[in-house]
Amino acid sequence: MDEHFLFYVPPELIKHDRLQFSEDEAHHIAKVLRKQPGDIVQVTDGVGNTMDVRLIVVDKKKVAGEVTATYNTPAEPDRILAMGVIRQRERLEFAIEKAVELGVTKIVLVHSEHAGRMEVKPKRVEKTIISAMKQSRRPWLPAWEERDSFYDVLAEYRESREVVMAHPDVEGTYEWKGDDSPMLLLVGPEGGFSPKEVEQAVASGVKMISLGQKRLRTETAVCAILSLANLSR
Amino acid sequence: MDEHFLFYVPPELIKHDRLQFSEDEAHHIAKVLRKQPGDIVQVTDGVGNTMDVRLIVVDKKKVAGEVTATYNTPAEPDRILAMGVIRQRERLEFAIEKAVELGVTKIVLVHSEHAGRMEVKPKRVEKTIISAMKQSRRPWLPAWEERDSFYDVLAEYRESREVVMAHPDVEGTYEWKGDDSPMLLLVGPEGGFSPKEVEQAVASGVKMISLGQKRLRTETAVCAILSLANLSR
Repeated sequence: MDEHFLFYVPPELIKHDRLQFSEDEAHHIAKVLRKQPGDIVQVTDGVGNTMDVRLIVVDKKKVAGEVTATYNTPAEPDRILAMGVIRQRERLEFAIEKAVELGVTKIVLVHSEHAGRMEVKPKRVEKTIISAMKQSRRPWLPAWEERDSFYDVLAEYRESREVVMAHPDVEGTYEWKGDDSPMLLLVGPEGGFSPKEVEQAVASGVKMISLGQKRLRTETAVCAILSLANLSR
Repeated sequence: MDEHFLFYVPPELIKHDRLQFSEDEAHHIAKVLRKQPGDIVQVTDGVGNTMDVRLIVVDKKKVAGEVTATYNTPAEPDRILAMGVIRQRERLEFAIEKAVELGVTKIVLVHSEHAGRMEVKPKRVEKTIISAMKQSRRPWLPAWEERDSFYDVLAEYRESREVVMAHPDVEGTYEWKGDDSPMLLLVGPEGGFSPKEVEQAVASGVKMISLGQKRLRTETAVCAILSLANLSR
């Protein structure tokens, strides 16, 4: 059992160094961890701050405290992941969890041409992201959004950053820069990007990379491309 | 739905180009895919061969065929992954699945000092490995074994290969060679390797690498270290 929990309280709920925990977090603090008034817990606001919080009120429904110290973590390298929506919810959530752990700053869930119209449940996505942020003790909460078209994603982000697409049939290699310049990483859904999407990407100057000769599931490709983008040096 | 299934028949069950499928595979071929005698399916023997097999008998309990063509895939780079056993079975199986997809050649499940005595179910491990091999259309079946001690693993493999341990508190960087030389990759269980295990690893000349400043779950570290070992170039 891990004893170093990190709790999450959004910045708008922290006022003059006082904060109140959500019901879920309150339950965890009061019932699971059996904390008492006076105990210190660690809290992040999801925008770079980790705080020591001394508990003032601890009861079943309400847990509140005051910030006694704040530590700031610099912003992370800007890594947007746009991934085709996976039909299996469990694998989609796994991909999201892993992306957060591996340092994504924004997740774009794309209903690309081969992804179909699988419904995305916003509350589940948000819960998965928050939980992975806390678990990996990362004080930055990644943003996320849903998009109906791959072409829109490309149009919106290609001017501002290097764009790299994972594609199984690529010859040659891509040299990861190993620096902190902004990137958009593209991973297809289970059926891959459509030939038209790939063509448009190539025409837009997107760099194509192979993730090996084996066929990777979407969530595996997500792990691989983020590992390479953030850890290759 | 994927239409390019790869079936698995171990080499000892292929005789004079004739083979019979296991009951599970037979069910899949006869009942799910509704194949008929004369149809061709693709089969691997897990030791580098992918075969076209013409079905001769297709009924509920028995499916058999004959090999009409064989394609050989060269052996993959030798990558042994020794990982601490994860308590949550779902995450353990996920780590195994991802390791196979990302090109591991052998998985060593280690009851290291912080892993505890979580029971490993051999049939589940084998099933997970076979399923991931088929899914990724990889004609090599990774081996696996279970070990009671991290020190035994180190003693057995350290002479024959480069050994790299993922460790959260490492300064400096490790240069992945990007070649096919044999490697042993070490990933700790949820609580990490013990200080004594780390000390012994360092004393044995094991290279330590950091997988970023965030705390990674075991299965995430497995994805990251194999991506780096097999895809960094």
